Amino acid sequence: MDEFGLIARYFTRSPRGSLVLLGVGDDAALVAPLQAGSAYALTTDTLVAGVHFLSDAPGFDVGYKALAVNVSDLAAMGARPVGFLLNLSLPTLDEAWLARFRDGLFALADTLALDLIGGDTVRGPLAVTVTALGEVPAESALRRDGARVGDRIYVTGFLGEAALGFFLRAGRLELPEAFHEQVLGRLDRPIPRIIEGQALRGVASAAIDISDGLVADLGHILKASGVGASVDLHRLPFSDAYDAAFAQVGFEAALSFGDDYELCFTVAPDRVEALNGFMSRFPCACHYIGDITADTGLTLFDGAAPYTPQGLGFNHFHE
Amino acid sequence: MDEFGLIARYFTRSPRGSLVLLGVGDDAALVAPLQAGSAYALTTDTLVAGVHFLSDAPGFDVGYKALAVNVSDLAAMGARPVGFLLNLSLPTLDEAWLARFRDGLFALADTLALDLIGGDTVRGPLAVTVTALGEVPAESALRRDGARVGDRIYVTGFLGEAALGFFLRAGRLELPEAFHEQVLGRLDRPIPRIIEGQALRGVASAAIDISDGLVADLGHILKASGVGASVDLHRLPFSDAYDAAFAQVGFEAALSFGDDYELCFTVAPDRVEALNGFMSRFPCACHYIGDITADTGLTLFDGAAPYTPQGLGFNHFHE
Repeated sequence: MDEFGLIARYFTRSPRGSLVLLGVGDDAALVAPLQAGSAYALTTDTLVAGVHFLSDAPGFDVGYKALAVNVSDLAAMGARPVGFLLNLSLPTLDEAWLARFRDGLFALADTLALDLIGGDTVRGPLAVTVTALGEVPAESALRRDGARVGDRIYVTGFLGEAALGFFLRAGRLELPEAFHEQVLGRLDRPIPRIIEGQALRGVASAAIDISDGLVADLGHILKASGVGASVDLHRLPFSDAYDAAFAQVGFEAALSFGDDYELCFTVAPDRVEALNGFMSRFPCACHYIGDITADTGLTLFDGAAPYTPQGLGFNHFHE
Repeated sequence: MDEFGLIARYFTRSPRGSLVLLGVGDDAALVAPLQAGSAYALTTDTLVAGVHFLSDAPGFDVGYKALAVNVSDLAAMGARPVGFLLNLSLPTLDEAWLARFRDGLFALADTLALDLIGGDTVRGPLAVTVTALGEVPAESALRRDGARVGDRIYVTGFLGEAALGFFLRAGRLELPEAFHEQVLGRLDRPIPRIIEGQALRGVASAAIDISDGLVADLGHILKASGVGASVDLHRLPFSDAYDAAFAQVGFEAALSFGDDYELCFTVAPDRVEALNGFMSRFPCACHYIGDITADTGLTLFDGAAPYTPQGLGFNHFHE
């Protein structure tokens, strides 16, 4: 079977979204114009075997996560996901692996009604690039540069569980068996917060998804917005699993690892009431963790004492 | 320098195109809505070191070609290129190489006034993925499935020179020194036919770019359109360099190698006059090479005798 057969056999399906005029199988995909005021959001992430996932990771999880991390970026813009392109670099043609990869990819794509609209399959070291396309009202897209002094800082869901999954799998963490599936699932199959992201349009002043850890990602908001922040570590939302691991990982797994794909966002004081009005109906809870300050930089407090993160931050070229 | 610094330092520039609302530096790029009737075209290709380019290939050429092959796909749709995303997988942070890569990438991007609107930089085996975005009137996009019996088949430019460059570099071809720069340039820095592609809207009934060789790529048009073709090999456009190599490569370098990134397109009889009206003003010549037939499959003629290609076709999973 040649590469064209491979693409056709595994990945070609008829597009269902009304915005997709032409999907897989031509020189380019075509997507329809949007109504005035709407913009297409485009984002792309590459996952490399041995760097972003284990070389022997289940195909299902690789497929799921490659799409999830990109959809998470759309969520962080407040965008509605529309479709995606898939670039797959494969060292060999392992049809069984590929079938599981596809199952994982489409498990998420089908849940979100996302169309695969194009891509490329090549021979090479195992790596996956997904480029995701979303739709968002241009004026209310959630950017990184809108945080202002006095805004409150929130995060969705729980922090640090993906880190626990990573350290558990690496044999570097003791954790009651009852939590294993939960933390490994959070690492392998993160849930992009697209409902929350869209609900936050017009409410959040800035937003980002937490892929590199709260310190790094909140730091991007602070830098883009030209402000600082104060975060109370005792307000960080921890799950029971995290509480069980706290003696081993402290705050670090929540602060510096990433891979949680929760949203971190800021809300101006006059929008807090609006947030409180619908936050309780979110699929996941949101937690207020700190405030935007005029002093630049991020200051963390463990009670009254400033806390300096140890830095497990995942940074591809950090020596 | 961390990965964020790397992206910022090498690749962040302010977008100049009016369609780009938000470029590099947020969770996603934002592109403006188009006027009714226009569609965005999206295409993506991955180039892997050791597969699509030599591992020691000059950074300039890798950057140029990674963008060129994607822009070529937009040309084959008749689209006007707008912008692109860049995914770069690098084994080490070689700033000198990266600077040359950027120079090659932006040499083409600047020529075409293309904005880099997003991307991802990761540690991994050397590989480049570009996702290109273009704009095209939806109804006159050049698709693969529009060829009809009786249409004429054309190609732009010359065929087979990229193959000559490849075989020359591999030490498998004797060629007068005077042609070396020409054929290596055609392999390393192909010229996407975007002017021709846009001019062919409303004139060509189908189009594709020749990345895998005329036999394979014309074959895609035939399959998508449910027709066959007859091609006269004596009509194939050969350069002086190709003529000089003909005794060694015969027709095969033109038929089965690819990497030329010329356009192959079909024109209905009643549109031939329109084509002739502007074809002479193209940057490159177009040549009539054969006809669409009712018999499925592609029949090649060397004079009166049918010719069977030997198949140098570049196919990533072909055994």
